Amino acid sequence: MIFKNCTVITCDKGNNIYKNGALVIKDGRIVAAGKEEKLEKKYSSEKKINLKGNIVIPGLINTHTHIPMVLFRGIADDLPLKKWLEDYIWPLEKEMIDENFTKWGALLGMMEMISTGTTTFSDMYFYEDIIAEEVKKAGMRGVLGQGVIDFPTPDAKDPQENINIFKNLAEKWKDDENINISMCAHSPYTCSKDLLKETKKIAEDYDTIFHIHVAETRNEKDMIEDKNKTVSPVKYLDNLNILDENVLAAHSVWLDGDDIDIFKKRDVKVSHNITSNLKLGSGIAPVDKYLKKDITVSLGTDGAASNNKLNMFSEMRIASLVHKGYNLKPTVLKSEEVLKMGTINGARALNLDKEIGSIEKGKKADFVVIEKDRINFTPFYSPVSNIIYSSTGDEVKSVYIDGKLVYEDKEFKTIDGERVKYEVEKISKKIRSKV
Amino acid sequence: MIFKNCTVITCDKGNNIYKNGALVIKDGRIVAAGKEEKLEKKYSSEKKINLKGNIVIPGLINTHTHIPMVLFRGIADDLPLKKWLEDYIWPLEKEMIDENFTKWGALLGMMEMISTGTTTFSDMYFYEDIIAEEVKKAGMRGVLGQGVIDFPTPDAKDPQENINIFKNLAEKWKDDENINISMCAHSPYTCSKDLLKETKKIAEDYDTIFHIHVAETRNEKDMIEDKNKTVSPVKYLDNLNILDENVLAAHSVWLDGDDIDIFKKRDVKVSHNITSNLKLGSGIAPVDKYLKKDITVSLGTDGAASNNKLNMFSEMRIASLVHKGYNLKPTVLKSEEVLKMGTINGARALNLDKEIGSIEKGKKADFVVIEKDRINFTPFYSPVSNIIYSSTGDEVKSVYIDGKLVYEDKEFKTIDGERVKYEVEKISKKIRSKV
Repeated sequence: MIFKNCTVITCDKGNNIYKNGALVIKDGRIVAAGKEEKLEKKYSSEKKINLKGNIVIPGLINTHTHIPMVLFRGIADDLPLKKWLEDYIWPLEKEMIDENFTKWGALLGMMEMISTGTTTFSDMYFYEDIIAEEVKKAGMRGVLGQGVIDFPTPDAKDPQENINIFKNLAEKWKDDENINISMCAHSPYTCSKDLLKETKKIAEDYDTIFHIHVAETRNEKDMIEDKNKTVSPVKYLDNLNILDENVLAAHSVWLDGDDIDIFKKRDVKVSHNITSNLKLGSGIAPVDKYLKKDITVSLGTDGAASNNKLNMFSEMRIASLVHKGYNLKPTVLKSEEVLKMGTINGARALNLDKEIGSIEKGKKADFVVIEKDRINFTPFYSPVSNIIYSSTGDEVKSVYIDGKLVYEDKEFKTIDGERVKYEVEKISKKIRSKV
Repeated sequence: MIFKNCTVITCDKGNNIYKNGALVIKDGRIVAAGKEEKLEKKYSSEKKINLKGNIVIPGLINTHTHIPMVLFRGIADDLPLKKWLEDYIWPLEKEMIDENFTKWGALLGMMEMISTGTTTFSDMYFYEDIIAEEVKKAGMRGVLGQGVIDFPTPDAKDPQENINIFKNLAEKWKDDENINISMCAHSPYTCSKDLLKETKKIAEDYDTIFHIHVAETRNEKDMIEDKNKTVSPVKYLDNLNILDENVLAAHSVWLDGDDIDIFKKRDVKVSHNITSNLKLGSGIAPVDKYLKKDITVSLGTDGAASNNKLNMFSEMRIASLVHKGYNLKPTVLKSEEVLKMGTINGARALNLDKEIGSIEKGKKADFVVIEKDRINFTPFYSPVSNIIYSSTGDEVKSVYIDGKLVYEDKEFKTIDGERVKYEVEKISKKIRSKV
């Protein structure tokens, strides 16, 4: 199949962009990307799809979500973190989270993500097998992890039970092409030393990503430093031998120079969650310093309860803007760099960069068709500038995952959107009655 | 005419929001807003329009634009300010700006603004009479000002000629209901003392807003301080007796405590341009301090060359997020407050708060219908939270100005969009050939 008449932004090593470009896919993988003229000759017998001048980018990769929390979107805003968690989120989670909540929350979240160009997400929540089943049915791609924490969770009485859930998940999905299982230890301040060490050991045994919240707030930093005699959260984790190239550190807001050096040395991957960090007043991570050291920085929305979207176009735009203003430097987080944070860096953070994250021969055919003929894209000088600085996410027209259409001309092909809205409305009625 | 079956967010003094609400308008003005049940009885003979559960907000007010610059959107990004201005924007402005550029740029800008819910904008540019003509034809509302500066401009050889253009504009439009003329002295560092004093005097004679860039960059602050023996840009203007309640100070990034006290004392109005200030690396204005002192803070996009959108939903969202993160305080710039910054505060900043800015009896019927049934608004708990934190701007369904439809079900009623795109493409081809 050859997609012609488009601009292809590859996010490959050479940052190649093909105007008058084309893309050839076969059996769910990319066969070639390049100039249309050349590819049309070489693949003249392939079925042609005319993309009418639109733009193709790699599927976006959201590296930190709690997807069912989308059902709490807008239930409580503008509150101090402690009050937000203790008076709203935790009581609601305790009362509301069950299989049904998880399933319909996951589906609603996937609808928002697919319709804004995300093809892969990395999740940390509960009942994660239910999420995996829905991701599989929707034809999305997920790196999904059961949260492990020192407390009982909605689906497990203690950390050991959560660890068993992880093991079952890892076994069940080990041969799946779309689902990867991650180990999700919640954070340095909510997991004991032993639990951190044990979960990391198990993650190594199963060769999975170790996904953890790190240094999200100043309060967390202070707490760890108090408990551990002025050792920062990063040094604390490093002293436990947790940090290596398979660690995905969400947030990573409160790192000092030594911490950054440790991240570099251990090749820790960062999920930068700019919107959530701003909205909860957590702070602004020194991402320009991470990038200068060539640390892999990907982007995540966090849960929609603290964002309040699951839209990676928003994340890319806000990240690029905030670091420029905060550092008084318009040259940091350039548009090309931020697009890579939303694509290939996300793939690297999830150890999937051989398979996804760019439009390159041999990779999975996960890509997004973006409408060019939009008021906010007019005039059209630079496709990357338009995508990062002028977009809203509503420009997404169609989405392919594994070469299959999951979203076509703004219609879902694998999810029954009306049914999801109906079930979500039932759940949200219950939530409304509790706040 | 009665608009029924909607949620009406009034932005009035009591912050009233009417679920199951209705809105009554007559002869271009609001007659009543309130509970549907009550208003349907009282106005039973009025023509009914069913808004199908959607949300109504006051028209958004963008208090700082250079509207034709939308034609430079994305032409140059990620550059130091000096290089951006000197190598790209100024040479392009010199070569490109003429009546034709101004007309089609204004129309494209209005298309973007209307389609994202803006009904009034405050502009500073050249050939402003052409912009006024197009605003009038489009049925929008504008506070429009010819830029006055110490240098020649595309349409005038010196400041005196620009002042004459102002006088002609002010005379021509003085009785118009939609067009107000403002005096736009460019800035303290590009206008001489005498020019600042003269233009302010003339603005007083004509009883217009005095619109000026103030303390946008640290460089400007340093320059003014060097020239004037450690007097800040704000003190410099105050010493010239420029500052009063009719001054609209765009940007206002680099103000110290004394400067803020002066703004408070003189009742100066601020146009906060968060996106532009971030993107150009200018800095983050201490808006939380302005609000604490009850200074009127409105929002502006600035020109789309440094934004790169003219979308007030983006401005509201980013402003609310950035100040929370920057101040480590999730309680600042609450959603209700930010919506007021985008509506009634904008009206106050333009001295139009008796006429627009809220949905209240007697005011002009400028309002926006926002779709409720959107994935990113699901579940639906709080309309204000959704509008500020979850929107993209693409939720705007219809826009009324003076009670007249200018945008209906996403179609322009007063602008020929296809023609605008055609003419813009011709101009952008020329621009492309020059960079």
